[in-house]
Amino acid sequence: MDERDAVMRTHRATEITVGEIGQRVTIAGWVQRRRDHGGITFLDIRDASGIVQVVADPEDHEAVGDIKMEFCVSVAGTVRARPEGTENPDLPTGQIEIGAEEIVVLSAAGTLPFMIDDRVEVDERVRLQYRYLDLRRPRMAANLKARSGATAAIRRTLDEAGFLEVETPTLINSTPEGARDVLVPSRLRTGEFYALPQSPQLFKQLLMIAGVERYFQIARCYRDEDFRSDRQLEFTQLDLEGAFWDRDDVLDVIESVLVAVAKELRGVDVPRPFPRLTWHEAMNRYGSDKPDIRFGMEIVDLSLVFAESEFGVFKDAIEAGGTVRGINAGTREWSRSRADALTDRAKEFGAKGLVWMVVEDDGSLRSPIAKFLSDPELGEIKRAFSAGPGNVLLLAADTWKTTVTVLGGLRLELGRPANHDELEFLWVVDFPLFEEGEDGSITFSHHPFTSPKSLDDMRERPREAISNAYDAVLNGIELGSGSVRIHDPDVQREVFEILGIDPDTAEKRFGWFLEALRYGTPPHAGFAFGVDRLVMALQNESSIREVIPFPKTQTGLDPMTGAPTWVDDAQLEELGIELTSDSEARREELEA
Amino acid sequence: MDERDAVMRTHRATEITVGEIGQRVTIAGWVQRRRDHGGITFLDIRDASGIVQVVADPEDHEAVGDIKMEFCVSVAGTVRARPEGTENPDLPTGQIEIGAEEIVVLSAAGTLPFMIDDRVEVDERVRLQYRYLDLRRPRMAANLKARSGATAAIRRTLDEAGFLEVETPTLINSTPEGARDVLVPSRLRTGEFYALPQSPQLFKQLLMIAGVERYFQIARCYRDEDFRSDRQLEFTQLDLEGAFWDRDDVLDVIESVLVAVAKELRGVDVPRPFPRLTWHEAMNRYGSDKPDIRFGMEIVDLSLVFAESEFGVFKDAIEAGGTVRGINAGTREWSRSRADALTDRAKEFGAKGLVWMVVEDDGSLRSPIAKFLSDPELGEIKRAFSAGPGNVLLLAADTWKTTVTVLGGLRLELGRPANHDELEFLWVVDFPLFEEGEDGSITFSHHPFTSPKSLDDMRERPREAISNAYDAVLNGIELGSGSVRIHDPDVQREVFEILGIDPDTAEKRFGWFLEALRYGTPPHAGFAFGVDRLVMALQNESSIREVIPFPKTQTGLDPMTGAPTWVDDAQLEELGIELTSDSEARREELEA
Repeated sequence: MDERDAVMRTHRATEITVGEIGQRVTIAGWVQRRRDHGGITFLDIRDASGIVQVVADPEDHEAVGDIKMEFCVSVAGTVRARPEGTENPDLPTGQIEIGAEEIVVLSAAGTLPFMIDDRVEVDERVRLQYRYLDLRRPRMAANLKARSGATAAIRRTLDEAGFLEVETPTLINSTPEGARDVLVPSRLRTGEFYALPQSPQLFKQLLMIAGVERYFQIARCYRDEDFRSDRQLEFTQLDLEGAFWDRDDVLDVIESVLVAVAKELRGVDVPRPFPRLTWHEAMNRYGSDKPDIRFGMEIVDLSLVFAESEFGVFKDAIEAGGTVRGINAGTREWSRSRADALTDRAKEFGAKGLVWMVVEDDGSLRSPIAKFLSDPELGEIKRAFSAGPGNVLLLAADTWKTTVTVLGGLRLELGRPANHDELEFLWVVDFPLFEEGEDGSITFSHHPFTSPKSLDDMRERPREAISNAYDAVLNGIELGSGSVRIHDPDVQREVFEILGIDPDTAEKRFGWFLEALRYGTPPHAGFAFGVDRLVMALQNESSIREVIPFPKTQTGLDPMTGAPTWVDDAQLEELGIELTSDSEARREELEA
Repeated sequence: MDERDAVMRTHRATEITVGEIGQRVTIAGWVQRRRDHGGITFLDIRDASGIVQVVADPEDHEAVGDIKMEFCVSVAGTVRARPEGTENPDLPTGQIEIGAEEIVVLSAAGTLPFMIDDRVEVDERVRLQYRYLDLRRPRMAANLKARSGATAAIRRTLDEAGFLEVETPTLINSTPEGARDVLVPSRLRTGEFYALPQSPQLFKQLLMIAGVERYFQIARCYRDEDFRSDRQLEFTQLDLEGAFWDRDDVLDVIESVLVAVAKELRGVDVPRPFPRLTWHEAMNRYGSDKPDIRFGMEIVDLSLVFAESEFGVFKDAIEAGGTVRGINAGTREWSRSRADALTDRAKEFGAKGLVWMVVEDDGSLRSPIAKFLSDPELGEIKRAFSAGPGNVLLLAADTWKTTVTVLGGLRLELGRPANHDELEFLWVVDFPLFEEGEDGSITFSHHPFTSPKSLDDMRERPREAISNAYDAVLNGIELGSGSVRIHDPDVQREVFEILGIDPDTAEKRFGWFLEALRYGTPPHAGFAFGVDRLVMALQNESSIREVIPFPKTQTGLDPMTGAPTWVDDAQLEELGIELTSDSEARREELEA
């Protein structure tokens, strides 16, 4: 059979059910399993829709002898009911089988580097090297499909709401998003460089100035960070902006998008509106600006309890303007080694130490510091924590920020669910406008285009000023963030100045943007969220690499194609660049 | 009014019609026009939906005094009927006006670099420098909207047909697409480079191997060519591939997509199937592999007529294995200078010369070569061209390829419509598999992954072999191309060999891909078309820059942001590269 002259298939695997019994069909797909039994060969044929069983007599079909796992074949045959007792209720096609009349090997398969089976654990590097086989596994195939469904749901929702999808350029100038830019040498302007976008931030603001009013884009973005556990050089975000918009307009439309995606991928109706916490509340209660509220274990303030404590550590912390707080870690086994391990963890989070207490059956508290505590204090502690027998209480004393951060970190370690079966979306609003660096300098906490809640506060107490910035959080994962933007060029200049960018530098770097703000810029606000992270959580995966079709390793390598690679000196010469002697040496070393 | 505490608008401009008379509304937008008349100020307020008229008494509204063109304002007021005789039937809101009660300047506008008006001609560089104002012009706003509508229509069509949208990586290895790659230095692997994709070709083939079966993506692609009239460094293509697919499956789905986009942007029903021409037929009849069939003027073969000609030039061409062909350019004014100009043009297209003939009223032929032609020849010429009095005939004699190319070029110059009012889609199929270089070497004409129609032909007569490649053409514009791919690694190796890529090089550059083909690769085929060009034609624009939100100039400059720019040496050092001394010199020169 010349495959170009024949219909390669009449049906997809799962389209063949009892209704097709007696019909002649042609299917095409991959051999998932082969069993030889009683002189008959059974082939499970898999295509994108699922699996169907083919039965062939090897004596009738020369091809059957050669067929191995993952061969790509087409089979023509007649659909028939499976013999009684051999039905498979787990398969949509489990009532029928195809009696093979013609079997064509479209493409042979060599020995597989791993089995196409979700139950087989394979080293990630090998999976990435053979990604085209890894993606055949049901879980990965489902992830690809879910991702496509997610972006389709996003677009459907925004199309219906009258948004325009606008493509912004990807060969742009550096913008100050906080991470390192990925640079691209220009050939026509040798020696100069474009940057790939960290986000389309300024272009979407320009679109607002251009009068687009409702913009979105599912945009590829780039950050050249040192790969942390779960970052990629390139990632995808839903980017969105609206003119004549306030914060609540943004929250409303983003909620509608997230709800649509959750419905598409999980079939659930997430209730709206999502809970909203101010940044202060989130930090106070959960010790995190991206709280996971699927479980309690909220942070309790004990500063009043210990205001007069005889325990020096607590007293000193409070007197220094700090705080004493804790969490009730619930009933759990407790031992010296467990205590030591958690104390080490707390120190990694920035604590000087960790105080633990266990409520005994008789209501007394066992703790290394028990002897320093008065009876009223003990009673108040138990009351504050609603603590009962067996509960483990963990306390920290330090500055407010350190205390809540440490307890927030421990809270996650002790209580965080291992999966994403449950979905808890929420908003964190009213972020600080600026952050203080270790040297006392001021930097932006969102980005320098975020508007302050109050101009007066910004001018008078910049370190305490609140911004119109907000984050969307799902199960403790920061999905994305947004803000009401500055639309007044004078305010924008003021913010640059507070950030220590002198007027000349501001003019040089952002002059073109300050100029753009001068022509009737509408008030506007927007948002961006990471598609990779959202799909990861909804697909119950623990790494974004599971939902990115072709990800790279943590050193930016593609084990399949070998990218990146060395290039010819002549190519570089055309771009007006050359390798440094260090790079040359690295190359020679690798080639040797 | 603090705009954060108030609703910025209750209605969009064109939502206000006679039904709203008597209602209090708030609108927001830009001042399109201001007229002061009889002590009253009329403001045309424009938002993304359109225009509505506001009437204000300057004595009641302090703000009105300051308001100039393109100020961004919000207006609250009561809707009322326009006084009789002042209605504007050209506007959807022409029956009503808003009596202003409150006017707030949201944002002032400085003196505009150009008027926001389609009728004003502005230098393109100035337009690009102030693109955010240029995009406020009705035509450009319509183009943005149309582009968004086009991609939405594409996605809708393919979603419904069961395609998955899959994002392929953009930091990849160089692939052999014929143009120069855009390179991206890697920081974590200093001295090595990624390439930005010229197309997702190999990744979409990998997705077929992965079992995706129906893939599409609206993908940003990059080519570092010397900018010709209408190229950009980055462009957008619809990329699509299907497994167990034949050519006609591709043509069918691409037609459905193009028809949906034409319907969305033009409201027309383009008839299907599109005409199909083989490459040979297209060249013979139109002298082009992307024929514009909106007009006739087809090429006529006169080789038989002149087989025995006394006119040496014709006779020699035929005897050398060439051909004599011509076009009937129709009735048009003819002069010596016109003839000279067209002859020059023909020479630019590769001709050695051009023969013209004009049919006189008496049926005789006026031509510099008339004296060499016999009466039977004259008669046969007129018959072949269906030529009548006043018709201008243009003839060329050369090799087949040169003759049809020259006549095809003249045909377009003389007959091509200046706009895209009419739409003529067509397919060109059966392209040659290979092209011959000037040195006799063989290169691919589509790309090296295109399958031959016949393996035997490819082996025996590679220079004449036909491929399974096809192009979609609209009004003489090549929208895109596709092919049935090679799915057998041995055939792929053979093609590399014919292309002069020795096995070692093939292994080094494509070894990973040849390996991927070894695991049950399904037969597959696909296509890609340029979204920019399609939207350009459907929007009746003559340049893709009119439908790209933020394009670059022909030297790759963004006049608005100044990208690309020089970067710090330290940044380059991190990437293991440095400027060449030539680049350094260029930089110093520019800074001086």
